[in-house]
Amino acid sequence: MPLELQLGQTSIKTRAAVAWKAGAPLSIEEVDLALPKKGEVLVRIVATGVCHTDAYTLSGDDPEGLFPAILGHEGGGIVEMVGEGVTSVAVGDHVIPLYTPECGQCKFCLSGKTNLCQAIRTTQGKGLMPDGTSRFSKDGQTIYHYMGTSTFSEYTVLPDIALAKIPKQAPLEKVCLLGCGVTTGMGAVTNAARVQPGDTVAVFGLGGIGLSVILGAVMAKAGRIIAIDINEDKFTIAKQLGATDCINPADYDKPIQEVIVEMTDGGVDWSFECIGNVKVMRSALECCHKGWGESVIIGVAGAGQEISTRPFQLVTGRVWRGTAFGGVKGRSQLPEYVQRYLDGEFELDTFITHTMGLEDINHAFDLMHEGKSIRSVVHF
Amino acid sequence: MPLELQLGQTSIKTRAAVAWKAGAPLSIEEVDLALPKKGEVLVRIVATGVCHTDAYTLSGDDPEGLFPAILGHEGGGIVEMVGEGVTSVAVGDHVIPLYTPECGQCKFCLSGKTNLCQAIRTTQGKGLMPDGTSRFSKDGQTIYHYMGTSTFSEYTVLPDIALAKIPKQAPLEKVCLLGCGVTTGMGAVTNAARVQPGDTVAVFGLGGIGLSVILGAVMAKAGRIIAIDINEDKFTIAKQLGATDCINPADYDKPIQEVIVEMTDGGVDWSFECIGNVKVMRSALECCHKGWGESVIIGVAGAGQEISTRPFQLVTGRVWRGTAFGGVKGRSQLPEYVQRYLDGEFELDTFITHTMGLEDINHAFDLMHEGKSIRSVVHF
Repeated sequence: MPLELQLGQTSIKTRAAVAWKAGAPLSIEEVDLALPKKGEVLVRIVATGVCHTDAYTLSGDDPEGLFPAILGHEGGGIVEMVGEGVTSVAVGDHVIPLYTPECGQCKFCLSGKTNLCQAIRTTQGKGLMPDGTSRFSKDGQTIYHYMGTSTFSEYTVLPDIALAKIPKQAPLEKVCLLGCGVTTGMGAVTNAARVQPGDTVAVFGLGGIGLSVILGAVMAKAGRIIAIDINEDKFTIAKQLGATDCINPADYDKPIQEVIVEMTDGGVDWSFECIGNVKVMRSALECCHKGWGESVIIGVAGAGQEISTRPFQLVTGRVWRGTAFGGVKGRSQLPEYVQRYLDGEFELDTFITHTMGLEDINHAFDLMHEGKSIRSVVHF
Repeated sequence: MPLELQLGQTSIKTRAAVAWKAGAPLSIEEVDLALPKKGEVLVRIVATGVCHTDAYTLSGDDPEGLFPAILGHEGGGIVEMVGEGVTSVAVGDHVIPLYTPECGQCKFCLSGKTNLCQAIRTTQGKGLMPDGTSRFSKDGQTIYHYMGTSTFSEYTVLPDIALAKIPKQAPLEKVCLLGCGVTTGMGAVTNAARVQPGDTVAVFGLGGIGLSVILGAVMAKAGRIIAIDINEDKFTIAKQLGATDCINPADYDKPIQEVIVEMTDGGVDWSFECIGNVKVMRSALECCHKGWGESVIIGVAGAGQEISTRPFQLVTGRVWRGTAFGGVKGRSQLPEYVQRYLDGEFELDTFITHTMGLEDINHAFDLMHEGKSIRSVVHF
C-alpha cells in the first residue's frame, strides 16, 4: 500500500516494536516517525531478521545500549520517500539497510582497506540521525534509533549512505538475512580470511553466523570444515550445509584446541569465532596451525571482557584478526551477494527456521534464547 | 690457522665461554668438541654478536634454558670439516649459523608460508644435535648446545640444514649480525608486515631489533617512523637511522597508544614490538589504525606471560601477528640479505657499538644490561 501524505505533513504513524527499557519484552505500538530530512530516506520494511545482537542490547548487557529504542538491523524494504538531495536511491527501489554505511568519501572508505565507514559513527552510536536528532517519538518522547537501522518498525528512516540498492526480483523476506548474519559469516571467509581450496577450517559456534561461515567455506572449496558447538542439536544443519566434522567440547577432557590440533595434524588453516566468548576466542586462535594459521573473531564479546594468549602463539606464526559485517562494503559489494543468491550460488531457506508477524516478535527472542531457532524472520 | 687432525681423532679442543649455571658469569675455558657426525658440519666461528636472548637464558628466566651450555646464536664462521653426506657446504665456505634451520622437506618448509622449519626442533630444544647427543663436553661432562648454534665457542658443530652459505667477500665480523638481530628486524618489515611507501610505522624499543626495524622501514620508504623508548639515549641513533619522531612514554600522562593515535590522526599502519614486554605489546596493537593497522610482535616475553586486549580492537580491523627471525628462510633467503649489504643497501657499523675478544664477553653482557650497547661483537 503506497504511502499517502497530506500537504504539510511532517510525520507519519508507524507500527513498531518498542524497547522501552532493558530486560523487558518489546511493546508493539504505533509511534510517530518524522519524514526524511536532507540526505535521508523513508523505507517501508517488508521483513526483518531477529539477531543475537538485538537480544544482547535488549538484555541490558550492551554498555552502549540506549532506551527507549526501536531495535532491529537485519531488514529488507522498499523506498517510500527520499529527502532533499538523495540521488542514490529512488521511490520504489528495494533496499537493505546497512548498519555499516558506505559514504565513499571518508578516510576509511577511501583507503580501500576496510568497510568501516566512519561518516556517521558518532551520531549512530548515540541512537540519532546524522543531524543529531531522532525521527522516532511517541507522545512527544524521543525514541532512539538503533544501529542506524531500526528495522523492527514498519517504516523507518535512514541516511542514504546506509542503504544498499538490490535487484527487485530478490525476495526481501529472505535476502533481509544478508543485512547482517549471512553476509557477516560468508564475507569473513573471503575478506577477513582468504580461504583457499583444500584448506582446513574450524567454526566455533553454530548460530546464524557460524552456519554462514560454513556456507562460505563450502563456496571457497575448503577441504575440511570442523564445526564446534556445545549444543549438538546444531550438528544436523551444520552437516547439511557442509561441515565435515562436528565436535562438542564437552565430550573431551582436554582443551578443545588441543583436540583440534591433534585431529588436523598440527592445527587448522583458518578458524572463526562466531559466539562472542573470549575464552572460545583463545581456543580458536590456539587451534590454528603453527606458522600460518589465522583466527578471525566475528562474535561480539560482553563489555569490558578481554582476550588473552601467550605471545608465543603469534611469534610462531599464528595471526589474530577480526571482522565486522564480514568486511563487506555495503553499497558497493552487498548487491553482489544478493545477485549471487539469485544466481543460486547459495540458499537462505536453511537459515530461516521461523517466520512470524511483528506482534509475535517477542517469541522470536524466546526461540533464540532457547537455542531453538537459527533465524526468525518477522514479516510486516 | 687450518685445523690439523690426527688419524683416528674423534674430537678437538676448543676455547669457549661456558655457562655453567644460570645467573653466573660465563667461564672462558677449553672444552672438548666431538667431530661432526653424519649431516653435521664443524665451523670455526670468526665473530659473534651478543644478543638479549643470550642474556635472557643466562639469567635463568628462560624456562627452557639448560645448563651447562655454550650460548651464542649470532655468528659468522668458516666451514672446517663436513660430516658424512654433507653436500650443501664445503670446507672453506663462509657461513652464518641458523637457529631457525631450513630443511626444505618438512611440512613447514614445503608450505611456502613460514620459515619455521621443524625438522630438528625437538632435539634443538633439548640442547642436542639431531641424533640426541651433544658434541660439547668437559672432563666427560656433557655441555649442551644452545639454539642449535652455540657461537660462543671458537669451534662449533651444526647440522648442515642450519648453515647459510654466504659470499666470501662479506666481512664475518659484521654480517654475523644478520644471524639474528638485523635480519629479524628488517625481515619483519617486509615479511610479517608489508610496509608500503608512505606508510606510518611505530617501533617500540630501540635495541638492535628495533633499530633494524627502522632500517627496514626506511628501505621500504615508510613516510613516518615513530620510535618509542624510555631510554632517550637511544634517540640519537634512531634518528640517524631514519626515525622521524622519537617519543618517551614517560613524558605523557596518558597511555602511549593514545598519544600515537592522536599524533597520527587515527593510528599507525604498522607497529612493531621489539622488547618482549606484554604491556608494550598491547600498546603496540592499540596504537594501530582502526580498519587496517597491523601489529607485529618480535620481542620474546617472559615465561608464562600473556598478552591481552579487548576483542573489539580486532573486530574493528586491527591485526595482531608475530614473527621469528623476521620470517626469513635461512638458507634460501639470508644470502640475499648479505648480498644486499655488500651492495650497499644498508650498513651495519651503526649497530656495532663495541668489539672485544672472547675473554671479555662478560663485559658485553654488562654493557647490554646497562643499556650502553646496541651490539657487542666478540672476535675470536
